[in-house]
Amino acid sequence: PKIVTLPGDGIGPEVTAAAVAVLREVAPDVTIEEHLIGGIAYDTHGDPFPQVTRDALKDADAVLLGTVGGAQDSAWNLLPRHLRPESGLLALRKALGCYANLRPVRVQPGLEHLSPLKAELARGVDILIVRELLGGVYFDGDRKIDGDTAYNTMRYTTPEVERVARVAFWAAEQRKGRVTSVDKANVLEVSELWRRDVTALRDREYRGIHLNHEYVDSVAMLIVSDPSRYDVIVTENLFGDILSDLAAVIPGSLGLMPSASLGDGAGLFEPIHGSAPDIAGKGVANPAAAIMSAGMLLRHGLKRPEGANQIDRAVALALREHPTRDLGGKADTQTFTRAVLSALE
Amino acid sequence: PKIVTLPGDGIGPEVTAAAVAVLREVAPDVTIEEHLIGGIAYDTHGDPFPQVTRDALKDADAVLLGTVGGAQDSAWNLLPRHLRPESGLLALRKALGCYANLRPVRVQPGLEHLSPLKAELARGVDILIVRELLGGVYFDGDRKIDGDTAYNTMRYTTPEVERVARVAFWAAEQRKGRVTSVDKANVLEVSELWRRDVTALRDREYRGIHLNHEYVDSVAMLIVSDPSRYDVIVTENLFGDILSDLAAVIPGSLGLMPSASLGDGAGLFEPIHGSAPDIAGKGVANPAAAIMSAGMLLRHGLKRPEGANQIDRAVALALREHPTRDLGGKADTQTFTRAVLSALE
Ligand SMILES: CC(C)[C@H](C(=O)O)[C@@H](O)C(=O)O
Ligand SMILES: CC(C)[C@H](C(=O)O)[C@@H](O)C(=O)O
Repeated sequence: PKIVTLPGDGIGPEVTAAAVAVLREVAPDVTIEEHLIGGIAYDTHGDPFPQVTRDALKDADAVLLGTVGGAQDSAWNLLPRHLRPESGLLALRKALGCYANLRPVRVQPGLEHLSPLKAELARGVDILIVRELLGGVYFDGDRKIDGDTAYNTMRYTTPEVERVARVAFWAAEQRKGRVTSVDKANVLEVSELWRRDVTALRDREYRGIHLNHEYVDSVAMLIVSDPSRYDVIVTENLFGDILSDLAAVIPGSLGLMPSASLGDGAGLFEPIHGSAPDIAGKGVANPAAAIMSAGMLLRHGLKRPEGANQIDRAVALALREHPTRDLGGKADTQTFTRAVLSALE
Repeated sequence: PKIVTLPGDGIGPEVTAAAVAVLREVAPDVTIEEHLIGGIAYDTHGDPFPQVTRDALKDADAVLLGTVGGAQDSAWNLLPRHLRPESGLLALRKALGCYANLRPVRVQPGLEHLSPLKAELARGVDILIVRELLGGVYFDGDRKIDGDTAYNTMRYTTPEVERVARVAFWAAEQRKGRVTSVDKANVLEVSELWRRDVTALRDREYRGIHLNHEYVDSVAMLIVSDPSRYDVIVTENLFGDILSDLAAVIPGSLGLMPSASLGDGAGLFEPIHGSAPDIAGKGVANPAAAIMSAGMLLRHGLKRPEGANQIDRAVALALREHPTRDLGGKADTQTFTRAVLSALE
């Protein structure tokens, strides 16, 4: 199988290198090809998602992404929107057809103290957020800024709702069997469609799943004040962006949060943290999320659950014995990566 | 001066009665007129915002609202959207022209233990969220659900952005002088306009204010993991709905959160908690937020800061001596209200 890596900007290259080292160890038969995306791709090719990268994806079985983008005051942010690093990421998601973004939020036993929440609230949290990734306000063509007016359109169709809801129901079947669908149906027509279609699909094909509906403002409260109530959460693109980042604080460090984006073709696997320009190049970034994303790549992308489990166990061990700085420890990127490598059995 | 009270549904009547008792004590010269809104208005008049209520607002100096809406499975939720209780609230906001919703988030000294956050994070939090209340995806006419497609439009114009930004800058001038404007300018054109106009207004008229811009997903994280970084937050309607509810968990009980909605005419003052149908009519609801909203009414609506301060001090005392059930105490609505009344000096 062939994997394309897209290290990207900021700390992306450092954490991707760590993940690649682990992948080579666990799956030595895999071919790995590196390409450019984001700001560095713009600097090199004048395009944040250049044709050469696009071409390389054609026969890829999975894609491992680092991070894209620069600091808030970066020159990239002065470019026209379609040339900015983030546009490269959005175009990549679209090109791969990855419509379901999976973000597991798990508090590792013994690491409750890292959470900003009280330990008794953080303990045992195990949520899977399924975010729709190709629709809504992110991708609708009907958008404009013109003089003193601007608008974007939040649009969904039934097939778009159903395909991502299927992923949530499927995931819930291997978990506790509960799905919470999040919308703002008391205000938005688009949420009315979302709620109707998710409900109909459950009634038709997933009768064993317990489904409930909650408003996005209420979930924002409850996920912080009572996170254990959730098993699988499914929601549209923008709500998912906000809620998944919010939920990501529960374990205490973004450095612990991997993600998988699945769709019709090759899946996309990436840490959810940003490019952290302030520490880029210093060798201190926590590569755990990138390494865990490589684990998700093995599990969901290449269907090698044993390899994925191997990585998860090794990361858990390394986190305990060689915590990085974001976790209050001292390990740098290399020390942590070596710890993972030597914990692999 | 004339105040219109709209007790509404669920626990609305109980908490509004408490607030009215306090108002009568602190501002005995004020005329108070009660009217219907929400589900009870629909049940009585077939309209969640009936003409008789609309008419009563014409010469009102301020409006004190309870809560609207029923349980998720309430029959009201099966009505066409424009007849549901929430539509009454949205129509009321529009009729009053209240474009700026102010939600103070303050952790009272000695009550840090109520927060789901660790006490050291909760201590001293004092944020003012200014939410745009009449624009964006809530009110744009261009919205539809039709067969298997639905959409809503998130639209803003420069005058809409400027008038709410002015409120945020004005508020910051009496606080720490810092405003964080929240958008999703890396993805949305409408956020590009928002950011541009907020910046231009600051540069033109509020050069003494420190303004920064953050993405909504990032703020969702930071407000929970590092709330003390914020002074005034200003944002559009939907982001404000989510972030202000999220921030409201920091003090540990929604029962402590008042709000003021200001605009061209009479202001609207309401607790941010919902109608809590599960405890409605039992006399156990915490009326603190409604009473504090009456305090905001005196401060912002009738320009009587002494009365407002009197109420705030009395509530703080009552909270310490007669905490309600949501705060881990035993006081019911009446006991708490009496404690506030007797603490007024
Ligand atoms: C960088 C940005 C376009 C992106 C998004 O909003 O999807 C990011 O916040 C994410 O969640 O991956
Ligand atoms: C009830 C609902 C329409 C309302 C809103 O979304 O504005 C509520 O959530 C609020 O924040 O006051």
